[in-house]
Amino acid sequence: MEYKAVIALDAMGGDNAPMEIVKGAVDAVKEKKDIKIILYGDKERVEKELEKYEYEKDQIKIVHTTEEISCNEAPAMAIKKKKDSSLVVAIRSVRNGECDAVISAGSSGAVLVGGQILVGKGKGVKRAPLAPLIPTEKGISLLIDCGANVDARPEHLLQFAQMGSIYMEDVIGIKKPKVAIVNIGVEEAKGNALVKETYPLLKACKNINFIGSIEARDIPKGDADVIVTEAFVGNVILKLEEGLASTLVHKIKEGMMSTTRSKLGALLVKPALKETLKTFDASEYGGAPLLGLKGLVVKIHGSATAKETKNAIFQCVTFKEQNINEKIVSHLSAEVEKEKQETGGDK
Amino acid sequence: MEYKAVIALDAMGGDNAPMEIVKGAVDAVKEKKDIKIILYGDKERVEKELEKYEYEKDQIKIVHTTEEISCNEAPAMAIKKKKDSSLVVAIRSVRNGECDAVISAGSSGAVLVGGQILVGKGKGVKRAPLAPLIPTEKGISLLIDCGANVDARPEHLLQFAQMGSIYMEDVIGIKKPKVAIVNIGVEEAKGNALVKETYPLLKACKNINFIGSIEARDIPKGDADVIVTEAFVGNVILKLEEGLASTLVHKIKEGMMSTTRSKLGALLVKPALKETLKTFDASEYGGAPLLGLKGLVVKIHGSATAKETKNAIFQCVTFKEQNINEKIVSHLSAEVEKEKQETGGDK
Repeated sequence: MEYKAVIALDAMGGDNAPMEIVKGAVDAVKEKKDIKIILYGDKERVEKELEKYEYEKDQIKIVHTTEEISCNEAPAMAIKKKKDSSLVVAIRSVRNGECDAVISAGSSGAVLVGGQILVGKGKGVKRAPLAPLIPTEKGISLLIDCGANVDARPEHLLQFAQMGSIYMEDVIGIKKPKVAIVNIGVEEAKGNALVKETYPLLKACKNINFIGSIEARDIPKGDADVIVTEAFVGNVILKLEEGLASTLVHKIKEGMMSTTRSKLGALLVKPALKETLKTFDASEYGGAPLLGLKGLVVKIHGSATAKETKNAIFQCVTFKEQNINEKIVSHLSAEVEKEKQETGGDK
Repeated sequence: MEYKAVIALDAMGGDNAPMEIVKGAVDAVKEKKDIKIILYGDKERVEKELEKYEYEKDQIKIVHTTEEISCNEAPAMAIKKKKDSSLVVAIRSVRNGECDAVISAGSSGAVLVGGQILVGKGKGVKRAPLAPLIPTEKGISLLIDCGANVDARPEHLLQFAQMGSIYMEDVIGIKKPKVAIVNIGVEEAKGNALVKETYPLLKACKNINFIGSIEARDIPKGDADVIVTEAFVGNVILKLEEGLASTLVHKIKEGMMSTTRSKLGALLVKPALKETLKTFDASEYGGAPLLGLKGLVVKIHGSATAKETKNAIFQCVTFKEQNINEKIVSHLSAEVEKEKQETGGDK
């Protein structure tokens, strides 16, 4: 049978591997009959997990690997040396064309480095950004870039805006996604040198719906669908959101347990509150795509559950169905071509 | 009588002016008999507020001003043109030596510009940072710089670390405050160009307790007392904290009101929760000092209450008592002197 998409899963990466990763794969193939999943990892351990479930055997295959990359290893070195690790072999399957996308809950650094080195950038792509989906009051936004390549230039940010728009429109299904650049004020004259140089490029870009600057306080409100920023700032935003949310929820729980009266109240509000906090739970929304490569690489949380794994798989399927890679490359090469002509003309 | 400190208050700045500002002044002089406060603003309106209270008349004076600066005005222009505005006259009183410090809840931009232009930088100070106190799990941290001067250089960040340390130790009373630089990882090799260049300077600096890098997720935990960063990133951190906290609290309230059962529970947890959330309320901790000037300028929230005003006044009094300006200037000029000698020696 011809499958709509073949997805590679690093079955050994993350805190809950292989258990939750394997369960996510099974849950995914139960819902979608026209996809195939390849699990990369220790055959014996993965098989033991698979035995727990009933599913269409043809839809899940195991590729045995003998090594694992831990979060404590230097990423570049690990990718180079551990050639038979679950992550490296899984990523290679995308490079080889065997799989359409690869998902890993393993070491962020190794996924980033591995994606860039082993899969390689698409034609016309200047830099591959990591773009996590972050929860907001209205739903989700794409925060692009949160990767490891800091000190971006304006032309990188312009490409991030275009890649992010394509992803949000065609994978997540948001029509004409609103693109904004992170800034310290909303006036066009505000910002640091990078933002001031990038702003007119975004404004002039015909194929995105640029709405201007966004201040950090408005990010959680969901005022923009694609939030463009340089990786250092993106990383700060992502990690501060995680840290502050966990600190606040912790404080609130502590507060609720502080008196007998409030303990009783806590029992009553708990179910409703759980539902509310779920909308702010990043695991509901799949992972962070590393865009602009010759194939899709998706990083999910180290603590990823079966649900996050399944959601990430479905995102990858849509990515393939919608030919996102082709769209990104054709968009960006057209821009690069135009740029060349203009530069040529100026001389 | 000789007063320990004379504090200038912009009585017309902020959403609750002059009412809350005047009340804050009265509350302060009731607690401290050896301070004096000068209220700058519309005499009639300020007097009307003052009439509500009993206090030692000698401790509060009014200086009548005829203009006000609003948040919608271009800061530099407003400071230049509105010479008889409450803010400009209040700031001038520090420059003239009539007052030791000035506090305003008015336009952030105008306070920043006014402070720098009208008071001026202290000897040896390369750049004056705005350093708000932010609530954490453990208490408060100083986030330095959140001002309007972006694209800082390593030598600016080094000075911010020293000024912030002096402030936290001598004004807030934290012994050997832990200084950290905002980074995207804790390893020394991580970071953007600015952080990589600044790190060794901080490490080599003898008069601060540098503990290395801090990731944004650990800021709310209170792992560092002085959090050094460039103004663009500082601004993003400050505003994201405000935005996310308000979004989360809003969501939680909404969740609690979603079912009859949870509504009942909400009534029971409310008092305890209020107490908890108070620890995350920035108004408990006074304002954001603009450090490194020839006098102290403090920005409090636009929504500042009497309590925040009073707390800011007490911080200014400590600032004066501890001779913070002299300490900052002597620390920084010693560094600048050393730098000159080293540069001289190299040639």
